[in-house]
Amino acid sequence: MTASDKVDLGELRVQDEAQLQSKCSKKQAKKEMRKEKLRNQRNTVAAVRSSGFDVCDTFGDVRLSNLKVKSGIDFWTAVGDLSSLLDGYHVILRTKVVKVRSKGSNIVFLVITENGSTTTAQCVCSEDKELIKYISKLTYNSAVDLEGFVVVPDRPVEGVTQKEVEVRLKRVFCVARADKLPFTLEDASRCEVDRGTGLLDDLGNDLKESKRVRVNTDTRLSYRVLDLQTPANQAIFKIMAEISAVFSEFMRAQGFLQIYPPELNDLGSSKGGARVFKLDYFGQNACLVQSSQLHKQLAVRAGFRRVYVVQEAFRAEDSDTNRHLTEFTGLHCEMEIEDSYSEVVDVCEALFLKFFDALHVKLSKDLEIVRAQFPSLPLKYLPKNPRLTFEEGVKMLQEAGLNIDCTKDLSTKAEKMLGKLVLEKYDSDFFILDRFPMAARPFYTMPCDTDPMFSNSFDVFIRGQEIVTGGERISSKDLFLQRAALSPEIDLKSLAT
Amino acid sequence: MTASDKVDLGELRVQDEAQLQSKCSKKQAKKEMRKEKLRNQRNTVAAVRSSGFDVCDTFGDVRLSNLKVKSGIDFWTAVGDLSSLLDGYHVILRTKVVKVRSKGSNIVFLVITENGSTTTAQCVCSEDKELIKYISKLTYNSAVDLEGFVVVPDRPVEGVTQKEVEVRLKRVFCVARADKLPFTLEDASRCEVDRGTGLLDDLGNDLKESKRVRVNTDTRLSYRVLDLQTPANQAIFKIMAEISAVFSEFMRAQGFLQIYPPELNDLGSSKGGARVFKLDYFGQNACLVQSSQLHKQLAVRAGFRRVYVVQEAFRAEDSDTNRHLTEFTGLHCEMEIEDSYSEVVDVCEALFLKFFDALHVKLSKDLEIVRAQFPSLPLKYLPKNPRLTFEEGVKMLQEAGLNIDCTKDLSTKAEKMLGKLVLEKYDSDFFILDRFPMAARPFYTMPCDTDPMFSNSFDVFIRGQEIVTGGERISSKDLFLQRAALSPEIDLKSLAT
Repeated sequence: MTASDKVDLGELRVQDEAQLQSKCSKKQAKKEMRKEKLRNQRNTVAAVRSSGFDVCDTFGDVRLSNLKVKSGIDFWTAVGDLSSLLDGYHVILRTKVVKVRSKGSNIVFLVITENGSTTTAQCVCSEDKELIKYISKLTYNSAVDLEGFVVVPDRPVEGVTQKEVEVRLKRVFCVARADKLPFTLEDASRCEVDRGTGLLDDLGNDLKESKRVRVNTDTRLSYRVLDLQTPANQAIFKIMAEISAVFSEFMRAQGFLQIYPPELNDLGSSKGGARVFKLDYFGQNACLVQSSQLHKQLAVRAGFRRVYVVQEAFRAEDSDTNRHLTEFTGLHCEMEIEDSYSEVVDVCEALFLKFFDALHVKLSKDLEIVRAQFPSLPLKYLPKNPRLTFEEGVKMLQEAGLNIDCTKDLSTKAEKMLGKLVLEKYDSDFFILDRFPMAARPFYTMPCDTDPMFSNSFDVFIRGQEIVTGGERISSKDLFLQRAALSPEIDLKSLAT
Repeated sequence: MTASDKVDLGELRVQDEAQLQSKCSKKQAKKEMRKEKLRNQRNTVAAVRSSGFDVCDTFGDVRLSNLKVKSGIDFWTAVGDLSSLLDGYHVILRTKVVKVRSKGSNIVFLVITENGSTTTAQCVCSEDKELIKYISKLTYNSAVDLEGFVVVPDRPVEGVTQKEVEVRLKRVFCVARADKLPFTLEDASRCEVDRGTGLLDDLGNDLKESKRVRVNTDTRLSYRVLDLQTPANQAIFKIMAEISAVFSEFMRAQGFLQIYPPELNDLGSSKGGARVFKLDYFGQNACLVQSSQLHKQLAVRAGFRRVYVVQEAFRAEDSDTNRHLTEFTGLHCEMEIEDSYSEVVDVCEALFLKFFDALHVKLSKDLEIVRAQFPSLPLKYLPKNPRLTFEEGVKMLQEAGLNIDCTKDLSTKAEKMLGKLVLEKYDSDFFILDRFPMAARPFYTMPCDTDPMFSNSFDVFIRGQEIVTGGERISSKDLFLQRAALSPEIDLKSLAT
């Protein structure tokens, strides 16, 4: 249910039951509860009966179950569908109020919005003066059901998306009346660019100097339900959902099966161990999943061959960088190798091309909306993107003057630098770095057959930022145990059981 | 990577770093680490170099990176595709060994399996006696790459799915050799029916009396990677993935947007509060999500209108019944009501018809496989399923002799009884019970407009077992606060903030 009233459902608190029970015995408490229940039932009836609102045939605040406007008409017209083709048509709309403007006692204008489209609705010289008065008192962001007919004005209407039409209102019902809001969507949607010298608005004015209101993160989070209404947030959620759908569609087409590994794990089965959220599991120690790697591997070994997972991951890392997230939705896959390790890299690259194409084609409008608030450059990618060996990458960095050892992992600085060098050379923001040094990978990574200093493992980069890590796991028991024995952090005894 | 060796990856343990650091200073430890690293690198090279297996051109144990069989051929043939059409064709297969049978020193048979299909492969009078010896020593469930050509024997081969062909082996490589297994798949796949008098096998023999091996749950869980290979488990995972895909597809088609609400919550925002898993969140109290109801509601109120969620839910209920699960994947949706509450029930019913059709059409073969191990009757459902009001349901129970109050919730016993009555009357295992009594629902449920003793809420039942709960939430702030005030477990003060 949608409703714009300011009740923050997240704030519900439950009374401490222990407190209640300490006051009286359990038996008494039960008796009291039964009484309370009866009282509740009686009071509910009374409350509902008394909640008849002040509603007449043409306007008023209604509950959904009292809806008046839809009688006799089967469908709502979307604001985005309003055009001169509907001239003279009778329409009903469910919208939110953006602006209310009275002109004397005879005329009142509304600007209303729905799904990013806006239009003007007006009530002129209504015989029902109360209707005009009612409309003029509607509050910003209230949800309203409107009935009226479409007219085409002589001149296009400025400041709305549906410029060629207006709606002449006949009936107006408020479904959910908004209180005064802590910020306007206009303020929350404004573009802010940090150019080093301070925060600038979309016209390049320093926000500290201008009078423009800036909505801070804490305010946004306190009123998340409002902040989510900004066009950028609406687009971000749509993009997230679409990317997730592209992922599932691609994976299924490639023969992957979706599995749902547990998110509660035995404390011992988390790799690493230090950075997990621990919890009490009916007296046992458990932790939240960091990555479902082991379960995916078990599934592949159990004969599913190719599996994918869309799952929350939890990292108990109290770090405030753009490379750390405490909770995120991970898109993972695990596959059996048929012939050579490069099959894994192929699947990964093809997946990203699907993502980029989806963003480019299906989601370009949404991406534009996001960019209006959070400016960014379009991604450069190619039908066949650069795939460099780690050694080739290091060579590019060495030629650019960096002193780098090709048997060690890259620093964040070197990664960013490499992103720039690849962009210059290949004109692509996207690239894959293959054959990482063994020393930079976990012990269970398969060494390269041709040079065991390197491994069958890769990273995917966008603009010098690592976004995917992948590799072949050792499939030979002997080699696995040899590698584990060489790894100081692995307790061989526990492997022997 | 798939490999059948018995290393239990779930058992990896990490050495206690604190122990290490107490022995020497941090500086010394670091120095030691660096040394260790260098030693590792040297040892890795040695280990990999010494891991050259005893492989010749026609047989041997290989690592994936040494694969020999695929040279010169581009694709694997699936066992399920082997038929007389391929008579004389040269094929390569990747399969698992089901049986090995030697006949003297000149001939050896393999039964091999892949994705539920089985066939016979044989090596006859090979000039390479070592090849025959090698094949005869292959172990059950080992992964093998095979090369050979297809022959059509005079008589169909018994006991395999691909009866019209055999494969004459030329080369055999073992990719992962299985140790002796704790149980066979045949034992783990056997049907067990509890007929009250004890456990019976699929022939109706009492398992305690017969000599048949029974694989217990603890053994299955200790070797989950093996147990997952039973046909029933393979089918169950496929059904789970497919149902999830049907859900997403249906929701998207109905205009729902997938969202990913957090699974870590503020302790206060969990409804109920008592049955959550609590954890320490960087010094604050947090808990795992029980249901993402509030986030879904906020998303709808934020203008997404229709959202759906596929998310793990956690219930800290230490109960051992078939109605309780500690962790499960929940399929949820939340929608804006356009005109009347019944829209929600309509969506829910249409969704289940999609599920049933998918099970009936796409997944009937998989369902049959599951039923072979876990017998059950096909579900009875109708294009238009029974939708009863709670009062109608109670009336049916009363007529059947039960003494039931229609303003209170149904007991589990009454629910099961109602399932039977509905099946008798309507010939459907599936039904919806609508307009539950307010007393059986949370305070935020919208009362029925016509009778506030009842609510706009419903349950979906299959065979008398509730599988979905849904309802309209109160959208009027005034009514919400009135109802909260009547509810003894709600602290009104916390709502006022």
